[in-house]
Amino acid sequence: MKGIANAPVITELENGSIVTPKGFSAIGLHTGVKRKRLDLGAIYCDVPASAAAVYTCNRIQAAPLKVTKESIAQEGKIQALVVNSGNANACTGEKGLEDAYKMRNESAEHFTLPPHYVAVTSTGVIGEYLPMDKILPGIKELKPQSTLDAAESFNQAILTTDTINKKVCYQTVIDGKTISIGGVAKGSGMINPNMATMLSFVTTDANIESEVLQEALSSITNKTFNRITVDGDTSTNDMVVVMASGLAENDSLTQTHPDWEKFYAALKEVCESLAKQIARDGEGATKLIEVQVTGAKSDDEAGKVAKKIVGSDLVKSAIYGTDANWGRIICAVGYSGCDIDPDTIDIAIGPCQTLINSQPISFSEEEAKAYMEQNDTIQIKVDLHVGDGVGKAWGCDLSYDYVRINAGYRT
Amino acid sequence: MKGIANAPVITELENGSIVTPKGFSAIGLHTGVKRKRLDLGAIYCDVPASAAAVYTCNRIQAAPLKVTKESIAQEGKIQALVVNSGNANACTGEKGLEDAYKMRNESAEHFTLPPHYVAVTSTGVIGEYLPMDKILPGIKELKPQSTLDAAESFNQAILTTDTINKKVCYQTVIDGKTISIGGVAKGSGMINPNMATMLSFVTTDANIESEVLQEALSSITNKTFNRITVDGDTSTNDMVVVMASGLAENDSLTQTHPDWEKFYAALKEVCESLAKQIARDGEGATKLIEVQVTGAKSDDEAGKVAKKIVGSDLVKSAIYGTDANWGRIICAVGYSGCDIDPDTIDIAIGPCQTLINSQPISFSEEEAKAYMEQNDTIQIKVDLHVGDGVGKAWGCDLSYDYVRINAGYRT
Repeated sequence: MKGIANAPVITELENGSIVTPKGFSAIGLHTGVKRKRLDLGAIYCDVPASAAAVYTCNRIQAAPLKVTKESIAQEGKIQALVVNSGNANACTGEKGLEDAYKMRNESAEHFTLPPHYVAVTSTGVIGEYLPMDKILPGIKELKPQSTLDAAESFNQAILTTDTINKKVCYQTVIDGKTISIGGVAKGSGMINPNMATMLSFVTTDANIESEVLQEALSSITNKTFNRITVDGDTSTNDMVVVMASGLAENDSLTQTHPDWEKFYAALKEVCESLAKQIARDGEGATKLIEVQVTGAKSDDEAGKVAKKIVGSDLVKSAIYGTDANWGRIICAVGYSGCDIDPDTIDIAIGPCQTLINSQPISFSEEEAKAYMEQNDTIQIKVDLHVGDGVGKAWGCDLSYDYVRINAGYRT
Repeated sequence: MKGIANAPVITELENGSIVTPKGFSAIGLHTGVKRKRLDLGAIYCDVPASAAAVYTCNRIQAAPLKVTKESIAQEGKIQALVVNSGNANACTGEKGLEDAYKMRNESAEHFTLPPHYVAVTSTGVIGEYLPMDKILPGIKELKPQSTLDAAESFNQAILTTDTINKKVCYQTVIDGKTISIGGVAKGSGMINPNMATMLSFVTTDANIESEVLQEALSSITNKTFNRITVDGDTSTNDMVVVMASGLAENDSLTQTHPDWEKFYAALKEVCESLAKQIARDGEGATKLIEVQVTGAKSDDEAGKVAKKIVGSDLVKSAIYGTDANWGRIICAVGYSGCDIDPDTIDIAIGPCQTLINSQPISFSEEEAKAYMEQNDTIQIKVDLHVGDGVGKAWGCDLSYDYVRINAGYRT
């Protein structure tokens, strides 16, 4: 039982997955798009599921995003979601779009569904055509199951350069009924080549209309997935999709439902957990960095400042070098573009207050170093003292020789 | 004689320096702020020089910037500029401001000038107080000379992690008189820790009022210094200062002067050359990258798109890996925030056209690889086909293990 401060009680399910919510099954298999690893997966729902999605804000969007948007727009429902890894089907022109439709149609036929009940997505190299001779036969082999092993094979099939699986499952009680929310994600964080794509798929058996679900997802995405640093290189393929089967049979959720906050908190916790798992798995990363900003003009500005700090290569490399280099933190605050007072900034790194009212205060460099050496998650707290806005952001440190130059500099 | 396309003829002077323009002398020496290397320098002008400056846009600004702004604001003239490296005097509160004033006053006394004829600037570690016991006695030893060796010692004194000196000198003829513009800069480009500061000092003997000079400098800075990538971490200490002695005795330059374009072109060439030298010396860099964008909605937008491309870690690491990875380039165009048409983008890497109307075209990967291996400067050309705007930006590739992960990926 995990208590969320000031939030309704929600429970994390250790062995939960995307097939924990009632009605869902999944599978992953190898078709040959990638050399050895699993590269095609599907999530299937026994009934048409209310669907919500958010997409990359890159003006160049991959073909499958266009097709999936069209599917969800038609009725707000999908029943199957088919993903391949190893090839992004991005910047592939007319033929790419045709291929995405073919992938959708083949899946619809295989699962005996109308095409608009199918979402498709791809992640991998940009600018190469999908190897349809591998994907189309692969689709015919997709036999989703409701086992943990099957969910695990789906998780594997969507990975690219990730070093660990990202998954999570929460439960809560709504109208006296237990509802589950399971999620999976891929994305190896920053400094990732064509594969920088972040994908996340969330399933739930909560009963909720797609419009309401969309509103919740958009709001939550801004505070979770959009608060992690990838590498500034917003992918052409980023996508988060939530599917809600309704099979928990609660009264349909709306913002006026007495248990609304429980559902919102559970969905937010699922997204935040996946976002942090992505940040922690940034290529070469050794630490998760969590920045909490308070006293901003607004929550939005707090989030913006937090993200600037955690996105700074200099801050990241200082953390890798276990150097309590608050100068780099205040520098990032200064160029955040947010409304600040240069003379009222407090900064703490873990247990060490390093700056009060923008003036350096004496702290133990040894204590700060020990804190950074001994913890997997590094907390940075900044109080701007110009308002009531609060917000968090997550990232990872920078390691390797790239950082060799930076990390040791101040010593 | 270097011809600039469609611009008035200006001449690069191989052995020119900041003391080439009439009236200027300079010097650098070692005071102990840095362990071994030169760390204090001065530029002196025989007469009060018209001054113009641009400063960091970071909201957190170092103490010397405030003092220098005050100096220049008073009369638009300065006669001496004193710089230390090794310590930035940034985020040092009231005491830091007092120290900057002391540095200015000591310099004014030493050179027998009113304090507002003196500019001071610092570069180095943030958040530590200036070692005044080293700097103040050092100021008394500053004996500027008009020799190339003296100019060279000044250049050395402002460096931090730079691996090469950045300097340039151009001449042109105005009212039948030869005028010179000499410049020097420091800044080791991206991935640089507390020392990311870019400083540039330009001297000229042209006769020009400070308001006119300021207007030209601001306009030129936007197309040169502001078009190189440092590392996104805008320093608290960035500063460009131009001093014009007027001793060439041309008629005072204004935008209606018949030779205005020559002066503007020479000053722009000096700034562009210094900016490119900084980009080329980015830590770990092996190549200069020049991105040229045409067909944008405006010149501003072209510059913005160019800077996004050259600022992309993914593009930079592809160049290091000599991989003609146009997918990363179009991805950066997509998230530039500029007005584009996703279907009308052309991309060329050196001699290889890789994309026309956003569709991949066949090109020789071997030719592209050879081009990237054999050239020190890599040209990327992007045509957006939505307007007449043109612009350039410069950066460098990413090397080291940080890049090991990225560069080889598509192979």
